[in-house]
Amino acid sequence: MASVDVPVALLGYGTVGAAVNRLLNEQADDIERATGHRFRVVKALVRSLEKQRHFPTAGGVLTTDVRDVIDDPGIAIVAEVMGGVEPAGAHVLELLRSGKHVVTANKQLVASRGAELFAAASGAGVQLRFEASVCAAIPVIKVLRESLVVTNVHRVLGIVNGTTNFMLTEMESGKTYAEALRAAQERGFAEADPTDDVSGADAAAKMAILATVAFNSRFALADVVTVGIDMIDPLDVAAARELEMVIRLVGAARLLDGKVDVRVGPALVDRHHPLAKVEGAFNAVMLQGDAIREITLEGPGAGGIETASAVVADMASVIGTMGTGFLQNDPVWRILPRLEPGENRSPFYFHLSVDDRPGVLARVAEALAEREVSVARLVQHQNGDGAALHVVTHETRQGALDEALAAITAMDEVRRKPLPFPVVSERGVAELGWA
Amino acid sequence: MASVDVPVALLGYGTVGAAVNRLLNEQADDIERATGHRFRVVKALVRSLEKQRHFPTAGGVLTTDVRDVIDDPGIAIVAEVMGGVEPAGAHVLELLRSGKHVVTANKQLVASRGAELFAAASGAGVQLRFEASVCAAIPVIKVLRESLVVTNVHRVLGIVNGTTNFMLTEMESGKTYAEALRAAQERGFAEADPTDDVSGADAAAKMAILATVAFNSRFALADVVTVGIDMIDPLDVAAARELEMVIRLVGAARLLDGKVDVRVGPALVDRHHPLAKVEGAFNAVMLQGDAIREITLEGPGAGGIETASAVVADMASVIGTMGTGFLQNDPVWRILPRLEPGENRSPFYFHLSVDDRPGVLARVAEALAEREVSVARLVQHQNGDGAALHVVTHETRQGALDEALAAITAMDEVRRKPLPFPVVSERGVAELGWA
Repeated sequence: MASVDVPVALLGYGTVGAAVNRLLNEQADDIERATGHRFRVVKALVRSLEKQRHFPTAGGVLTTDVRDVIDDPGIAIVAEVMGGVEPAGAHVLELLRSGKHVVTANKQLVASRGAELFAAASGAGVQLRFEASVCAAIPVIKVLRESLVVTNVHRVLGIVNGTTNFMLTEMESGKTYAEALRAAQERGFAEADPTDDVSGADAAAKMAILATVAFNSRFALADVVTVGIDMIDPLDVAAARELEMVIRLVGAARLLDGKVDVRVGPALVDRHHPLAKVEGAFNAVMLQGDAIREITLEGPGAGGIETASAVVADMASVIGTMGTGFLQNDPVWRILPRLEPGENRSPFYFHLSVDDRPGVLARVAEALAEREVSVARLVQHQNGDGAALHVVTHETRQGALDEALAAITAMDEVRRKPLPFPVVSERGVAELGWA
Repeated sequence: MASVDVPVALLGYGTVGAAVNRLLNEQADDIERATGHRFRVVKALVRSLEKQRHFPTAGGVLTTDVRDVIDDPGIAIVAEVMGGVEPAGAHVLELLRSGKHVVTANKQLVASRGAELFAAASGAGVQLRFEASVCAAIPVIKVLRESLVVTNVHRVLGIVNGTTNFMLTEMESGKTYAEALRAAQERGFAEADPTDDVSGADAAAKMAILATVAFNSRFALADVVTVGIDMIDPLDVAAARELEMVIRLVGAARLLDGKVDVRVGPALVDRHHPLAKVEGAFNAVMLQGDAIREITLEGPGAGGIETASAVVADMASVIGTMGTGFLQNDPVWRILPRLEPGENRSPFYFHLSVDDRPGVLARVAEALAEREVSVARLVQHQNGDGAALHVVTHETRQGALDEALAAITAMDEVRRKPLPFPVVSERGVAELGWA
């Protein structure tokens, strides 16, 4: 096939945008071998024409006017790498409506305005690809949409935020939360304002997208039950270690009896579980489904060049599938109800701080047994003038556990309300969920 | 897009073939949503029309004459799931030449006749896809060819044979080789004749394909230096354990200074390395490259339904990219020289059985130092009337180690020729190779 240059545009020319342009140039031969085409960046939308750029563009490419992109009929594909929900969202919507394929690295945009954007793409007969929006270079979207096309995926489990994974790993060596955060900031893993990472919001956006693609039903950021890691203290980490577990920020999406639950929050993960072994700032996503049992993808979940490589791969895939109708559809074709929070099932861990008086253990055990919450492991310690109880339950209904913990908290001997953590242990059978 | 039925054919209707037909039927809606089409099996080549089938075909579909497939101009895509190099190879070649896209699950065929087959596909302007030929449902071929299109992959490390992985895991609990083999046969992981698995031949075919796709240069089965696991005994396993390592059959393909080395053989893998954690009959492939650092895919590397799901995904991808020129090329576009065996670099482990006389350790150390083989760890034990030395070297040239071991073997005190194993430890930096 004779090579024809494909004019493309970028929205944004920061770290990722410059890396995309660099890859399009330096790997042009590879792209041509795969697609029969070379990509040429003809426009790049920026806020300032004056700023120094890492990989400068050719003259006349930078522009501050998005109309130069939207109104140029020669541009076939646009990569949105500017970030933020607005004005990126308005631009992408208009680009799709004007018949341009769009590739985006913007998880907040896809998680919050996906429905609108996919409707616009379908309407105009163009593609919206978004591999780079979830875990950078880990090709989980392509694998879900193309390789697992005939697998009913019923669960997605993931370590999808590298910053918190690094921090929790650091806390295992005895660091406090504040020290771990400082270490993450020094290594460049955490921003000066780390809220987006430590609150679980970043992970929640990724899980909303993964659940949407895996279950073909729309989940927005607001559908994800999200708990951050800022309440984790060294005592929790030490308690987990005693049970041969580690604390990790786990994203979990599951389809159970036709209902869906999507959550992000700290969980106790068995040391031997693959998710416990994800190192430092790496990410991993585990997909469980009918025909494939379980496929796990692990790799760097962030980084400029890693994200850019996913953007470029999506651009190549757009060219490679253009006009065939392949994946031009919105991944969503059904509406699935949400699982009521109380109906979620998981094994759980909690610890109790109690006065060391005769009969406390019996009363706690009774409160659990009455709600059919069955204890799998229990460790009791002396703790100053009181006692600490560490409890791991068998799989149980979240609602039953909540009732039992309310009854336990009401006991005179119990010093504070216990906080339950879900437990991730067995593979392919583990149940996960939390308060 | 209006749905149009796509007539397809199968070569072979055993476990995988029947599972392909079942998935094409039961997941027809999923396939249509992704591609705009439904697939209908119109012919299936079998050896006997009489045999009972798991998922029976419609009347008139089974045939014993391959001409019914080749000469039917309505058939657009053929899935080859019959196995064996011949007559499968002759059939596939003729199908490609007659303008039909082919999807194959046949690693021996792709590894041994890939050059011819891809040339035929290119000549006829059709696709040859082969995801299912390597590690069943783990989508490593699609990821390498489509997601990593702009990443210069320079190393592929893998556990690509589930049978041997299961056996070596079993041997860690004290089983002998024979006991582990029996356990694998009882679980259905090993054939009555296990030669293909335990000799490394199965893994070698997969590594030849992975190296070909990763480095875009042709590697056939004969290019893979292959060592089996049948010489591994409980003493090796125990020695590895003492060093906090496990023995695994590791496939390793690397591109070093423009030269390539592809091997399969037992290696000592650090307990904390992801490849040490691949459980039972699962497979894992680790891809290291420029833009992505390291991506690992793990999952079931065998199984009828798992293989069938990869075959169907390839069929959907063919439809989704037909006529665009995407991936219609042979993945091979260059010829890379082989690394001379002596130039391969790795840390190595070996153990020595020696007479316990003064000065032995000094002479061994000197023999290594003279060839600049540097010792990283050394453990000495009493062993009956002699001594056992366990040695782990720093990264060294294979040729230098071989010379040192020849000199050591010639010493009077050394009781038998030591067998070196490569060591896999650090990630992204580990060097791997072996004798």
